[in-house]
Parts: sequence; structure tokens; C-alpha cells
Amino acid sequence: MPGELALLRQIRSRAARAPGLSLRLGIGDDCALLRPRAGEELAVTTDLSIAGRHFRLDWHPAESVGHRALARGLSDLAAMGARPVAAFLSLGLPRELTNSTTRRKTWVQRFLDGLLALAATHKTPLAGGDLSESPIPFADIVLIGSVPRGCALLRFTARPGHLLYVTGFLGGSAAALARLAQLATAQPARSNLLRIPKKLETVLAPQLYPQPRIAQGLMLQRRRMASAAIDLSDGLSTDLTHICEESGVSAEVDAALLPIHPAANLAQALNGGEDYELLFTAPPTVRLPRTIAGVRVTRIGRIVPARRNHPAVTLITPQGRQALQPQGWEHFS
Amino acid sequence: MPGELALLRQIRSRAARAPGLSLRLGIGDDCALLRPRAGEELAVTTDLSIAGRHFRLDWHPAESVGHRALARGLSDLAAMGARPVAAFLSLGLPRELTNSTTRRKTWVQRFLDGLLALAATHKTPLAGGDLSESPIPFADIVLIGSVPRGCALLRFTARPGHLLYVTGFLGGSAAALARLAQLATAQPARSNLLRIPKKLETVLAPQLYPQPRIAQGLMLQRRRMASAAIDLSDGLSTDLTHICEESGVSAEVDAALLPIHPAANLAQALNGGEDYELLFTAPPTVRLPRTIAGVRVTRIGRIVPARRNHPAVTLITPQGRQALQPQGWEHFS
Repeated sequence: MPGELALLRQIRSRAARAPGLSLRLGIGDDCALLRPRAGEELAVTTDLSIAGRHFRLDWHPAESVGHRALARGLSDLAAMGARPVAAFLSLGLPRELTNSTTRRKTWVQRFLDGLLALAATHKTPLAGGDLSESPIPFADIVLIGSVPRGCALLRFTARPGHLLYVTGFLGGSAAALARLAQLATAQPARSNLLRIPKKLETVLAPQLYPQPRIAQGLMLQRRRMASAAIDLSDGLSTDLTHICEESGVSAEVDAALLPIHPAANLAQALNGGEDYELLFTAPPTVRLPRTIAGVRVTRIGRIVPARRNHPAVTLITPQGRQALQPQGWEHFS
Repeated sequence: MPGELALLRQIRSRAARAPGLSLRLGIGDDCALLRPRAGEELAVTTDLSIAGRHFRLDWHPAESVGHRALARGLSDLAAMGARPVAAFLSLGLPRELTNSTTRRKTWVQRFLDGLLALAATHKTPLAGGDLSESPIPFADIVLIGSVPRGCALLRFTARPGHLLYVTGFLGGSAAALARLAQLATAQPARSNLLRIPKKLETVLAPQLYPQPRIAQGLMLQRRRMASAAIDLSDGLSTDLTHICEESGVSAEVDAALLPIHPAANLAQALNGGEDYELLFTAPPTVRLPRTIAGVRVTRIGRIVPARRNHPAVTLITPQGRQALQPQGWEHFS
């Protein structure tokens, strides 16, 4: 049974071996030290992942929980057009998730496998954090990224006349979650993890292993293509409403243009959440590529002036126009 | 009953009104944006506060829980000699702590009162964070500070011959915790918060409202007086062992020199933890003031070469020399 120091040593040995250019001092002192380059701003974001709220211990494999925790933070950096510099992990864990009675990996080791694999993909050193016993498992992830001064993609800078785009496909994560729920109903009650058939891995990937759009956000920022951006964590209806409220504009979405995930339906694409695609606006003069770093880019609507007593977001379907209320996920609601 | 958005709005309205020089963008976008000054490094630290581990809902008033959560992070900055730039708060709360059935403030409002009062004292804007419902209350605090390049006070730079110092008094926090335990025994079982007599507020202050030594750490850093530093969060025996292990040295502590808090005993001063004073080393040629910003500075021992099969820390008493094992608090132990 590893004590906190033993677990800390494990994490330390697996974390940033060689601090990067910007990370001068990693795990082991009172603070980590970052050395920003000249002309850089730092983007900072924190994201909670709590068992029963953001993941289910019986549905999500430990590797997926670690992957998703980091993906949430990386996706926020992507939405700012920032390059990842360092991650910090605060972990609260029940004792049984750190214990190994057999030679099999502990839950926390597999959690770190998932988290560090995604961190390696995006060259993000784990630079620090905190660790404590807790009655329920949770992780708080902090991501720090860098972006040239004044170049960050923001939420409040969408303007009437600009066009609206998304990366990738929408609703795949919600569709996969519904599939997990089906599996749980079909399998006899087990105290342990859901057994996931190999053939379902692809269809479940958008939920279990969502890919933050770092490369896409970076390109939009570097080529100054986007006028505003947000990541789709809560669902298109909610996140687009955020852009509209912050920018003081309205938006129209063409239902026929939506890149709905093959496994998803319209409602999942509009309100599903956890797709971690980028939603962004661009002036009509900007010519966007069809794909960025292998991920498709789709125009789905436009920004229009805000009008009193009109909805922030309107969905246009063959049947006509309807208000699209934010129906994504709200805690404490 | 406020939803997440309502609570977020409350926090936002009370947080950083005017971003500071270094904080360009606060709460409201995917990330906060910091603009470091030329020649600065950024110090980053995260600290968990979990109910039942780091505080007790029935012993610590909500204001104290908020104060202590932020104090833990500020103290880490102090130990690096860093100036606070921004704080981020991730908060997991059971619904009942955000509900108000009467006109009285909710628990979370009082938590923020305590946190923001200390933040104001140290001119630290709350720049972001996350919020979620959780079966148990916890806070993860992230502090970002700045320090001139290469000037941060570190743990691994103590050298044989250097002298050992602490700020303030030791053991006051542990003594106050023991007093709270007495009070809990004396008062009839209550589901609610412990009633704290007015006359005990002073003696309980080191536990309920510890003061991070930001001004002291800054002065040590600016005048290049300290060769190594750490904050006393886990107790002198444990934190001094950290300095010795990281620096590859040993240390001798003179029991007779220890500035034991008037309410505390020797064991509390050595192993109590949560004093959040600074423990630091300085070359013998450096002349230290008796007080820094009103807080006393006391020489308590010296750094000596590490010797094989000898303890990292030795306590010298009138009865002779004894090994001082790290007996501070370890989670998961």
C-alpha cells in the first residue's frame, strides 16, 4: 500500500524528466517555475473531473478518466489558440484506488497511463500538483499555455456578418454515452467496470478518448483566421449562447449544414456536450481550408446583430426558424 | 437556490474587477490571460483542501475554510520569494452549502468572504477556476506568482555551514487544533458548527486564520539573504527533512532556540504543521534583521554535511543529541 510519498515518487518519476524550454523547475519544490518567452502571454485554465458528475467509475476505464481530465484542460487552451506549456494535477483518491493487492496495475497507475499518454501527444509536461486521500475520486487539472501577445482567440469578439464554423463532428460523445448506458442495462449487475466489446471501441472513442483540437486552434491563431472561438464542452446550444452573450450578438445555425456524427442524432449534436471540438467565427473574407491537421472544418451558420426580445441563437430547418435555447449541461441546476 | 451560472455570476462580480498589471483577462473566457513582465519567471502551485482531511465542517467556520485554502497557496509563493499575480479556485460543493433558506449568507458566500479578504490583503485577483456539485466539499487553489529570473528561493540549495532560521512562532496552529478538539468534547453533540467563545479567538487564530509570509519571502528574495527556503505546512521535522534530502545535506536544530508559540509544547512546535511560517537558510556572513515586516526571525540551527547512516535532522537538547524523524502529516499513510 503506497503512502503519499511513494505515490508522489511514482508520479514524479513518470512526469517531466527534462523540463521544457518554458518549464524551468517541475515537481519537487514549493512551486514549479515557468520562464515565459519574450512577447508571450500565458493562458491558464482549471477543470474539475468528479466521479458521478464528470465520469462514472463503472463506465469509464481508468485510462479514459485520466485522458478526459487532461483533454478538458487542453481543449480550453485550444480554444484560445494557445500552445501547451505545463499541466498540474490535483488528485483526491479513496485509498482503494491506490492499493494493489495483485500484480495488476492500480487504478491510479492506469489513470496516469491515460493522462500521460495524451500529455505526451501534446508535448505537455506534468509540472506539479497535489495529492490527498478523499472519500470520492476527483481530479482538478490546471493547464498553462502560451500565445503571442494580443493573439489569443477570445469569446467576446464575434461580429455580425462573420461566419460560424466547427471542427470535426458533433454529438459523437453523447451518442457514445447513450451506448454505454445501453451496455450497462444489458450486462448483469456488476460491482466492477463495464465490459466493453472490442468492436465498440471506435464508436465509444468520442466519449472515452476525445481529442482536444490543439493543432487546429494553433493554426487558426497563427494565421489570424478566427475572430472568436470557444470549445464545445457543454454542447453547441450552450457554448454558442456563451459566444453570443459575451460578444453582444446573435447567431443563426443551419441544421442542414451540421456535421452530425454518424452515430448521433440532431438533438445530441445540438445539446450533447463533451465533443471538445472548436466552435469559431471568421470574417467572410477569410478563406478557411476544408481540413486542418486532418480534421474537417464545416461552416454551420452566421453571426447576426442582437435584437431585443429575439433569441440569441436561432436554428434554421426546412420547417422554418426556431429558437435554440441553451440545453447543455449545467451543474447545480 | 442558485444554479451554477448564478453562483458563477456571484463569484465573477466579487472577483477581479480590474485585472492587474499582469492579469490581462480574468473570469469569463476559456482561459485567463497573464502578461508576464520582462525578466520575470512565474511560480505555480496547487493545493487541495478537502473536508475531513484539511478542515472540518463542524470545527472550521466557512470564512476560515476559505482563508486557509488560499493561505496554503500563498504560503508556497512566499517560500519561493514570489509576488502573487493571480489565484484560481476549483470548488466542489454539496448542494446544501450553496442553498440559502433564510436571509443569512450561504456557506459558500462566507467561504468566499474569507478567501477574498485574504486575497485583498495580498492584492491577489481571483482570475478563474471551476465549479461543480460534489458529495463532499473541497477546494483546489492554484496560485501564480512572479519572481525575477533566477532569484526564486529553492529547496535544494542549502549548503553546509549555512545557518537555519524560522519566521514567527512554531506550534501555535497545532495547539489551537488541540483546543478545538477540547471544545468539541466539552460542548453537547451538535450537528452544527462548534461555538467558539470570543475570548478564544486569539489563541485559535494560528489554526483558523494563519498568515502566509509573503512580505517576508519577498524581502529575503529581493535582498538575496536566503540560500534556501520552504514553508512550514507539514511541520518542522518533515519540512526540514525535505530541505536536507533535496539539498543533500543534514541539519542540526537547537531545541533551546526554538520560538515555541506560548500556547504550544515542544512536540507541537516540532511536528505540528500548518504554521505556514518560513523555514530558510542563509550563509553565516548574511546579517538578518530581528524582524521582517513585523514578524520575528529566529536562528534555530545550522546545516551540516550529510553523513552516511546519520539522521538527516538532529535535535540538540540539554540531555544530548537525538535524531528528529519526520513526524509531520502524511496522507495515505
